[in-house]
Amino acid sequence: MNFASDNTAGVAPEIMQALISGNDGFTLGYGNDDVTRGVERCIGEIFERDVAVFLVPTGTAANALALAHVSPPWGAVFAHEEAHIMSDECGAPEFFGGGLKLVGVKGVGCKLTPDALREKVSQYVGHAPHQVLPAAISFAQASESGTIYRPAEIAALSKIAHGHGMKVHMDGARFANALVRTNASPAEVTWRAGVDVLSFGATKGGAMAAEAVVFFDRNDAKNMGERRKRAGHLLSKHRFLSLQFAAYLENDCWLRLARHGNAMADRLAAGLTAAGRPPVWPVEANLVFIAIPKAVEARLKAAGARYYERSTESLPAGKTLGPDDVLIRLVTSFATREAEVDQFVALVK
Amino acid sequence: MNFASDNTAGVAPEIMQALISGNDGFTLGYGNDDVTRGVERCIGEIFERDVAVFLVPTGTAANALALAHVSPPWGAVFAHEEAHIMSDECGAPEFFGGGLKLVGVKGVGCKLTPDALREKVSQYVGHAPHQVLPAAISFAQASESGTIYRPAEIAALSKIAHGHGMKVHMDGARFANALVRTNASPAEVTWRAGVDVLSFGATKGGAMAAEAVVFFDRNDAKNMGERRKRAGHLLSKHRFLSLQFAAYLENDCWLRLARHGNAMADRLAAGLTAAGRPPVWPVEANLVFIAIPKAVEARLKAAGARYYERSTESLPAGKTLGPDDVLIRLVTSFATREAEVDQFVALVK
Amino acid sequence: MNFASDNTAGVAPEIMQALISGNDGFTLGYGNDDVTRGVERCIGEIFERDVAVFLVPTGTAANALALAHVSPPWGAVFAHEEAHIMSDECGAPEFFGGGLKLVGVKGVGCKLTPDALREKVSQYVGHAPHQVLPAAISFAQASESGTIYRPAEIAALSKIAHGHGMKVHMDGARFANALVRTNASPAEVTWRAGVDVLSFGATKGGAMAAEAVVFFDRNDAKNMGERRKRAGHLLSKHRFLSLQFAAYLENDCWLRLARHGNAMADRLAAGLTAAGRPPVWPVEANLVFIAIPKAVEARLKAAGARYYERSTESLPAGKTLGPDDVLIRLVTSFATREAEVDQFVALVK
Amino acid sequence: MNFASDNTAGVAPEIMQALISGNDGFTLGYGNDDVTRGVERCIGEIFERDVAVFLVPTGTAANALALAHVSPPWGAVFAHEEAHIMSDECGAPEFFGGGLKLVGVKGVGCKLTPDALREKVSQYVGHAPHQVLPAAISFAQASESGTIYRPAEIAALSKIAHGHGMKVHMDGARFANALVRTNASPAEVTWRAGVDVLSFGATKGGAMAAEAVVFFDRNDAKNMGERRKRAGHLLSKHRFLSLQFAAYLENDCWLRLARHGNAMADRLAAGLTAAGRPPVWPVEANLVFIAIPKAVEARLKAAGARYYERSTESLPAGKTLGPDDVLIRLVTSFATREAEVDQFVALVK
Repeated sequence: MNFASDNTAGVAPEIMQALISGNDGFTLGYGNDDVTRGVERCIGEIFERDVAVFLVPTGTAANALALAHVSPPWGAVFAHEEAHIMSDECGAPEFFGGGLKLVGVKGVGCKLTPDALREKVSQYVGHAPHQVLPAAISFAQASESGTIYRPAEIAALSKIAHGHGMKVHMDGARFANALVRTNASPAEVTWRAGVDVLSFGATKGGAMAAEAVVFFDRNDAKNMGERRKRAGHLLSKHRFLSLQFAAYLENDCWLRLARHGNAMADRLAAGLTAAGRPPVWPVEANLVFIAIPKAVEARLKAAGARYYERSTESLPAGKTLGPDDVLIRLVTSFATREAEVDQFVALVK
Repeated sequence: MNFASDNTAGVAPEIMQALISGNDGFTLGYGNDDVTRGVERCIGEIFERDVAVFLVPTGTAANALALAHVSPPWGAVFAHEEAHIMSDECGAPEFFGGGLKLVGVKGVGCKLTPDALREKVSQYVGHAPHQVLPAAISFAQASESGTIYRPAEIAALSKIAHGHGMKVHMDGARFANALVRTNASPAEVTWRAGVDVLSFGATKGGAMAAEAVVFFDRNDAKNMGERRKRAGHLLSKHRFLSLQFAAYLENDCWLRLARHGNAMADRLAAGLTAAGRPPVWPVEANLVFIAIPKAVEARLKAAGARYYERSTESLPAGKTLGPDDVLIRLVTSFATREAEVDQFVALVK
Repeated sequence: MNFASDNTAGVAPEIMQALISGNDGFTLGYGNDDVTRGVERCIGEIFERDVAVFLVPTGTAANALALAHVSPPWGAVFAHEEAHIMSDECGAPEFFGGGLKLVGVKGVGCKLTPDALREKVSQYVGHAPHQVLPAAISFAQASESGTIYRPAEIAALSKIAHGHGMKVHMDGARFANALVRTNASPAEVTWRAGVDVLSFGATKGGAMAAEAVVFFDRNDAKNMGERRKRAGHLLSKHRFLSLQFAAYLENDCWLRLARHGNAMADRLAAGLTAAGRPPVWPVEANLVFIAIPKAVEARLKAAGARYYERSTESLPAGKTLGPDDVLIRLVTSFATREAEVDQFVALVK
Repeated sequence: MNFASDNTAGVAPEIMQALISGNDGFTLGYGNDDVTRGVERCIGEIFERDVAVFLVPTGTAANALALAHVSPPWGAVFAHEEAHIMSDECGAPEFFGGGLKLVGVKGVGCKLTPDALREKVSQYVGHAPHQVLPAAISFAQASESGTIYRPAEIAALSKIAHGHGMKVHMDGARFANALVRTNASPAEVTWRAGVDVLSFGATKGGAMAAEAVVFFDRNDAKNMGERRKRAGHLLSKHRFLSLQFAAYLENDCWLRLARHGNAMADRLAAGLTAAGRPPVWPVEANLVFIAIPKAVEARLKAAGARYYERSTESLPAGKTLGPDDVLIRLVTSFATREAEVDQFVALVK
């Protein structure tokens, strides 16, 4: 019963197999190889667009490199106040971005809304040169609450951003989980809705350590190769990053793995709802949040269940935790099995 | 006949097997797992010392994180003018170090000598606060010319460094290749000779992407965890970094792989010497440099040999290239086979 | 009727005279002169303590240099969400601090309270290495609302800060204005109440461009000389910075100038209160904030009154602006004359 | 007999008078005043070009802000190895530039030559993304040796720079001294010869603390206002920077002051030559370098002469110091008097 994170799982068999198969022989380093070219082409096809692709080993690197590339040091990057980039990357965007400023925006379910974004951005207009300048917005698809943005929602945020000359960044650490839940294509939830740069995650989805920074306009990617290199994120035996991505994308592997993770989350949500513990936010990806009394918590822990508590100011209006309640986060993945879901639900009952 | 770099090889079978075997089940992320604890312990045993260990995926990251941690932004880091950190990391040390300054020192065979170091450091003393302050020295073991430092040489450099309050960093991207050539223990070529922090490489030696920053005094490592995280170099599925290192170190695998690489370099050197093309620098690790006429070069290229040309100002006194000569670098590795060495030698003849 | 800022005034006559008198002859540059030594000694005497002093030309430089010196790049600096360092220095603390993070705390009258501080700091504890670490608190004396902290208030904040290993920074751009209002000594409102480093402003008080970073423990100031130099804030003809400060401090000039500014603010407050427009926050320094209808505003503008509007979320509980009201900030200084105060009040009536 | 530096002098009377005269009344801060507008216009007229002007208090700030604005963090800035930015600014360009790299180039008399520049730049071409990229060249007019560049020399360097897509920066801390020696206009030695951005110094020339960053193409200056502000170099009582510059430029004051400094240097050079101690480099600005035996040195010191020793690798071919010689630097300024020049020469004899 490990629901601690989607990164507690190992590597999906398809991806491990690709690493094994691609290990033979010599290949030029630093991405000068055919597998890498193939991955770039493949990502372009998936997004129906000529894109610039940079593979890196971690999501923090992908986010920080992307944000630093679309914001000057005197830029403000607007994101939900509980976003991963705000509180879980130890200041990586600020470091990579030469001291750029992350500005937190409130919103239920860790989602940005047009009104809240507009209001916050307006505080950063008209005070030059005393204030940092609006440079980018960043939002997570799926969000830290497991909620997702529909294309129209993304388009509305992008419109505000572009109206202020800002770029739009999507943190897609769980992009696959979000995508398979929408009835939309990769293009529709990204550049067609105004996204300029995507952190396209594979690690949480089943890879070992592989993320892609995808620029939907090559002009935005100028010198990103230098930025990646000087951050130590250009792998010498780069083919092993590419092999992971190639296998992840081949034959819809990524979508299949994500669907499994989401299905496990649905099963968890259904079971918990039936047990009188409905999730506090809609379960739209592979994250389930419930409030449980400490007594139940103790029982779960004793039985070996693994998960993290979460504190949040992003609960839906009207929902509050009881004095004896804790909010817990349950994460499923490609590796989650029905049996452990059912065992967990039984324990909650 | 691929002698382009030791990173054109794949992953050594022992290490790939460890990745496969360690893939089962769930493990906490970010290094909070038993394999990681084991690697830390093992590195401590190898170096006969309580050490602080931080695993990262690239050598550039290891070097830049280490240097930034031992030098303030107003620090000068002295290194050979052709060192990897000077010319091949796109300014990573400067970026990680908040604008620290790398100061190049001349020396034959890409090696620092006490005299040259002392002379250069003296130019940075006595002009505070107008000049950056001596903060660290960095040298590569093995060097970019494939030469190595004996313990007494290291001790002499360290003494100068420590005398100025500087820290000593060893870039050990090819640490194993250097070590097996000395008649010394890991401790003797590092902290016993004054080294404070080591970039302990495994990637070139046969891993997929794994390097360790090793501090020989835990006090020097304070908050390195935060530095690594905000650089995006803390892997979420960290066990796969640790599995690589564990297998690399187990049963002297690393030394065995390095001995093979060195033996192939020796074979190459011997063959080339017999062919009238003796290496320009002593072959002490897995790098062989020879000067060849362009005509021979064309023949090699035509036969599919892979290697890089190198320009250098680090030739031994008296050695110069003829007007028609090019200097080429040949790198062997755990994956180099005798047959390709012999084929190459035959072509040169 | 210029109430736009205390920096719209010129230079106090005593200070201008010192610049003229000190202009003769040759003096070593970069602070290696007797006047500078005298200023350092004088500041030590005023604060009854051995201090380290660094003169710089701007308040932004003083704040950013001080904060960068007490926080690592992975540090969090807690300040009121409307503090000058948060919104009016274009990211200077983040730039100087290598990407440190400013964390905003709410509070009425732009003041930090122990409860709000404790609550916010608690969110940054226990998540290493994923989150930036509590490094410092910073508060303005006087605050951006013109309110001041009493020694006991400062001590309470310092206790929390020191309890978390954080340093305490006071932004004293209007230190004199605050000081003359308390019944306390410079020592009592600073280091005796736990302040570690002070931005001691003279510019707003009547100097041309002179601020002092004052460390109350010399150990905290190590290498600050290098930090200042590499930021371009070590003046070559440094004596002119020192001459300003020497004159500012001589014969209680600074206190006399501040008392005048405060008296003008009091007169303004009294007149406006009598006119039915009482200040929204207590007038404790040289800042007066009132809410006025747009019609009155138009009248003031037409008569040539100069001031800035201010938006704030820091109003006292229960106070709100009417739909037709604007909040305006009125700043007095050593140069404000009674006549213009009275003229302004008359216009408001 | 103070020849230590041109910054040991005070403020020229014309400039001090302007500060006094401009002190009356209220003026908006941060450069939003008429005097500042006038200075911008005046600089444009002097250079016969629409320019963007940013006033700052120090030369280090001017240089570092300018270089950071024309080079990305992964850029290489080529300068003479003994340039002020290389060794006397404590890493300011690297700090402001997010870790950019200064690359030293050799040359007699601290001057860049086309051949040396071309050769060094060529080492930074063709290794992307492993190496930093050529971004800018920087040279001092006058140089640290007191030599100057003629328009044709500047044009030759600029041509190389622009051919590699690099910008051209001139460090004009002693711009006036250089200018009055050439038979050329301000435009001819700057933008007409290819200079993109100039640090136009007034401090050494007679101001208190005032330098201007001048961009000859407004497009290159975009967001420089933010960069200056976040570096703490936007003065609040900005008029006092502008007043200095206005007076400096008015009625050719700057040229007159520079001519005096140069004339004093000429007198010194003539006297020393007659005394058998000819300057080691041509005296083209206000700097005179001579080699003297230690015995003479002792005599000068005893008589109270002030100057600095200098070590250099930039001597003309064939010139070397005797074992008992020291090289000393003598700097004249607007404040140098004939009597002290003659006294010094007499002592050397």
